[in-house]
Amino acid sequence: MPIITLLTDFGHFDEYVGVMKGVILSIDPDADIIDLTHMIDPQDITQAAYLLKASYPYFPKNTIHVAVVDPGVGTDRRIVVLKIDGHFFLAPDNGLLSLLWQNQTIEAGVWLNNSRYFLHSISRTFHGRDIIAPVAAWLSRKTPIKLLGPPVKYSDLKTIKNLTSKISPENSIDGTVISIDRFGNLLTNIEAGIIHQMCRQHPDKLPVLKIGNIFIRGLSSSYQIVPEKQALMIIGSRGYLEIAVNCGNASQQLEVCKGDPIAITLATP
Amino acid sequence: MPIITLLTDFGHFDEYVGVMKGVILSIDPDADIIDLTHMIDPQDITQAAYLLKASYPYFPKNTIHVAVVDPGVGTDRRIVVLKIDGHFFLAPDNGLLSLLWQNQTIEAGVWLNNSRYFLHSISRTFHGRDIIAPVAAWLSRKTPIKLLGPPVKYSDLKTIKNLTSKISPENSIDGTVISIDRFGNLLTNIEAGIIHQMCRQHPDKLPVLKIGNIFIRGLSSSYQIVPEKQALMIIGSRGYLEIAVNCGNASQQLEVCKGDPIAITLATP
Amino acid sequence: MPIITLLTDFGHFDEYVGVMKGVILSIDPDADIIDLTHMIDPQDITQAAYLLKASYPYFPKNTIHVAVVDPGVGTDRRIVVLKIDGHFFLAPDNGLLSLLWQNQTIEAGVWLNNSRYFLHSISRTFHGRDIIAPVAAWLSRKTPIKLLGPPVKYSDLKTIKNLTSKISPENSIDGTVISIDRFGNLLTNIEAGIIHQMCRQHPDKLPVLKIGNIFIRGLSSSYQIVPEKQALMIIGSRGYLEIAVNCGNASQQLEVCKGDPIAITLATP
Repeated sequence: MPIITLLTDFGHFDEYVGVMKGVILSIDPDADIIDLTHMIDPQDITQAAYLLKASYPYFPKNTIHVAVVDPGVGTDRRIVVLKIDGHFFLAPDNGLLSLLWQNQTIEAGVWLNNSRYFLHSISRTFHGRDIIAPVAAWLSRKTPIKLLGPPVKYSDLKTIKNLTSKISPENSIDGTVISIDRFGNLLTNIEAGIIHQMCRQHPDKLPVLKIGNIFIRGLSSSYQIVPEKQALMIIGSRGYLEIAVNCGNASQQLEVCKGDPIAITLATP
Repeated sequence: MPIITLLTDFGHFDEYVGVMKGVILSIDPDADIIDLTHMIDPQDITQAAYLLKASYPYFPKNTIHVAVVDPGVGTDRRIVVLKIDGHFFLAPDNGLLSLLWQNQTIEAGVWLNNSRYFLHSISRTFHGRDIIAPVAAWLSRKTPIKLLGPPVKYSDLKTIKNLTSKISPENSIDGTVISIDRFGNLLTNIEAGIIHQMCRQHPDKLPVLKIGNIFIRGLSSSYQIVPEKQALMIIGSRGYLEIAVNCGNASQQLEVCKGDPIAITLATP
Repeated sequence: MPIITLLTDFGHFDEYVGVMKGVILSIDPDADIIDLTHMIDPQDITQAAYLLKASYPYFPKNTIHVAVVDPGVGTDRRIVVLKIDGHFFLAPDNGLLSLLWQNQTIEAGVWLNNSRYFLHSISRTFHGRDIIAPVAAWLSRKTPIKLLGPPVKYSDLKTIKNLTSKISPENSIDGTVISIDRFGNLLTNIEAGIIHQMCRQHPDKLPVLKIGNIFIRGLSSSYQIVPEKQALMIIGSRGYLEIAVNCGNASQQLEVCKGDPIAITLATP
């Protein structure tokens, strides 16, 4: 049974997501549709890109991942289908998928333009329903990707800004808060690998995180390793650096917002 | 595989929706249950009626649509099953389904009263679980509708107020804001057809929308056709007039609430 | 088709729940996954315990109920699988399941420790994904429970506080507000049976509920039996005493919060 995942910024107030599922099941009654989240902050392509990258590896190969965060709907922005790491991805070409092909090969890719696989009537404001959902269902029915449109020119694909955090010549890493979860934990764009690399290169030093006026010294291996209500940094379950407060809400306690900058430096233990 | 859709005002804090699904799957393990929305404003039958009308055509024929917005639960209000346009609809008889039969034939309809298809124990406060969910599952198992209760007398069916906006003799259309989506877009009760009719009858004039102290001149064909942060009116993806702000939140910017009146008049371009 | 239900405090902002579903379907593509709720107040084990108890009987026997409210993740708290009343339950051993075995036999139970049924890589912060979801999927594939770990010593199982309300020697019942639903209705921890017992023992008296400075006299049989905007007490659909306001929001009107104490006494009618 093919799986189709949905990730959008549509929220839950409206029938938008349900209607996309109706379109999918009308074309492929056997599709198994799974919601990743519909609470991406409105039009936040970067947040969507990180959460999608964190999610897809937990699904079987050949899963079809639909991501609709689409501030450009109704303009001439293109919609893309990419096959990467054995999974299919459908999204507006606005950078949402760029974290996926940053370090991985694109196995196949087309610009969606074959209207044979769209709904008959296309609105100007809801391509998720009229174009992306039906194409996902046709993919789920094993329609070959090459029938959906012309091959993508990879150099034309859009990317999001600040894709990668790197170690600077001064031995620091600059990063950003990408998302805040329900518990107030802060997801950053700093990959586990780059922190571990920094620590390996300087085994006598301690990483120190600066966020606002707060300094956090050293990586924690679990929330409970620090006293209650104390802030900590930890490699989160998504493989990125996260900032948390043991038995507390880091976002509230540290007064941090999405988009705030962070910096990691090295200090003597 | 039969599809059952759910539209309620139960929200997501509680187990209510999940329990309805348990009841359905206990009776029909093959049912494919799809959430339309559970965030209808509490007891807002009108909003539910519009969102249901906008949703159902995207599902296959014979889908069973369950709608539970039920301020009268525990009173002698009736529950109804209607077949319209090849789909089945179950809801309290409080007007929730009235937009569906306004311009369409009711193919079949019964008042639910055969308790053989209910749960054994009926609470006074949750008929969605005890009556409507099990009946939906029995319908999904192809139980003939006529076994569920006596035929509906159509003239007894309840309707919601302000069903249709019309062109007045003075060439204006009065309407109302029915719902506000996550992006702040305003759904009105003015159908695309009536706007197009007005424009056809007066091809030298421009429709002008008044909402609060704001005037919007002319229909836009997409959000981006106006400058950023400017308000526009557009035929939305549901086939009704919507009010939006390009790259903005119309509800906040225009300070409009659900239920606010709007009016369309004609002006010289 | 086996059913797996999910109840968590993860909320809807993140991909956490969707990822758990991906893990489950990767192991058992035939599992039918149903959300009970993901809006348990963060780390509120008591609320989770009551909502799970109210939900599970509406699912078929052999359903696998996964409950993840896990403030102790990353510590040495244990995870438990219990079979009770023909259903399977997986949860951290923190009291979440204690309402279930309070008055029912535990048919089987193990501490989860066989990592053969876990994901290969176990994070310190998301055992729902790495341990509980995959084990649920293996149970769904009919893996015998005894393969998952050593038998539970029942006396070691954790319980939540204030498990049962009882009639005091002075003929009163003390209780607590456990949860507040979207409509503002207040769920208490006072079981229907104990109220009925009190009324049977004193057929000439009336139960009177005190909450804050408000007194509610007598049980109502439906919301509409009292005038609009008046508070009432009623046996709710979960089999517990609930407090509501007819056509209103009891939590707001009575200014009651979760955790507030209530008391039932007897008065002359």
